[in-house]
Amino acid sequence: MPRIITTEPLTATAFAPFGDVLQTEGDFRLINAGLCKRYHDLARLDFGDAGVGTSAESGAEAGAGAGAGISIFSAAPRSLPYTLDLIERHPQGSQAFLPLHQQPFLVIVAASPDSTPRAFLTNGAQGVNLLRGTWHGVLTPLHAPGLFAVVDRIGPGANLEEYAYPCAWEVHD
Amino acid sequence: MPRIITTEPLTATAFAPFGDVLQTEGDFRLINAGLCKRYHDLARLDFGDAGVGTSAESGAEAGAGAGAGISIFSAAPRSLPYTLDLIERHPQGSQAFLPLHQQPFLVIVAASPDSTPRAFLTNGAQGVNLLRGTWHGVLTPLHAPGLFAVVDRIGPGANLEEYAYPCAWEVHD
Repeated sequence: MPRIITTEPLTATAFAPFGDVLQTEGDFRLINAGLCKRYHDLARLDFGDAGVGTSAESGAEAGAGAGAGISIFSAAPRSLPYTLDLIERHPQGSQAFLPLHQQPFLVIVAASPDSTPRAFLTNGAQGVNLLRGTWHGVLTPLHAPGLFAVVDRIGPGANLEEYAYPCAWEVHD
Repeated sequence: MPRIITTEPLTATAFAPFGDVLQTEGDFRLINAGLCKRYHDLARLDFGDAGVGTSAESGAEAGAGAGAGISIFSAAPRSLPYTLDLIERHPQGSQAFLPLHQQPFLVIVAASPDSTPRAFLTNGAQGVNLLRGTWHGVLTPLHAPGLFAVVDRIGPGANLEEYAYPCAWEVHD
């Protein structure tokens, strides 16, 4: 018998404990002779470099040789209701997802494996940056093409932990 | 009397001297139980950190405190023919542009202020990463919304040089 949660709109305030909402809101800098607005430095990036510190588990040297990378993810579109049976987290770095399209997608996060997960729905013009260590569902576009640029940590060391729910959650609209 | 150049399709090979094409081509890793393809670490990022070195002009300490950031640019759409009267470069870091939409945009680059610029046209599913120091035109979407995620260097020190052409170029389709 799945446990049911419902989606909620993605807002910066609600999402703050889990990460950043990457969107064109608030202050900007006008550049390029006034023809471009720069919404500056929106994400709390963290790649476990020496200056930022490393997690207790991974040891003091885990950040050596690590840094930011850009990848592209192409994910299969899902639909609601969506069965959530697994969450994961990256103990050594933040992870940002930038939709290369204008379709909403589902962002599932959890404060811990024991807490009720939350399912945020983007408005089609929002990306997210998950803070280092944030428990989250896998990338879940709701429409094709499921293309996203991903900015995350590239480097040595284990950077993935998974948790399988003994009883699945079901995400409803 | 403007000098005329014509657009060319953006390909990884043609663009390699200037930067990287960020797209879903070539090898990928299958993740998330086979439901997501990860095109891994596509960009030669460079933020002038200690490990990478800094440009001769900016001095050995210029990279201190610098790192990757994610911003969003909202640029006014342009149209062809487009008048190119200025190029710029960032001596301290690479700069990646990821379209948050599926429209082609214009990527203008030049080997130097003295050489003929090249105007690449993306296919709607391509981003670019400009190598540190690459001369380029300002962000030029051809369609609304002109929204792009930008991954570039956030940090102290001057990181912008501009060059105004005494005789403008005109970019034709």
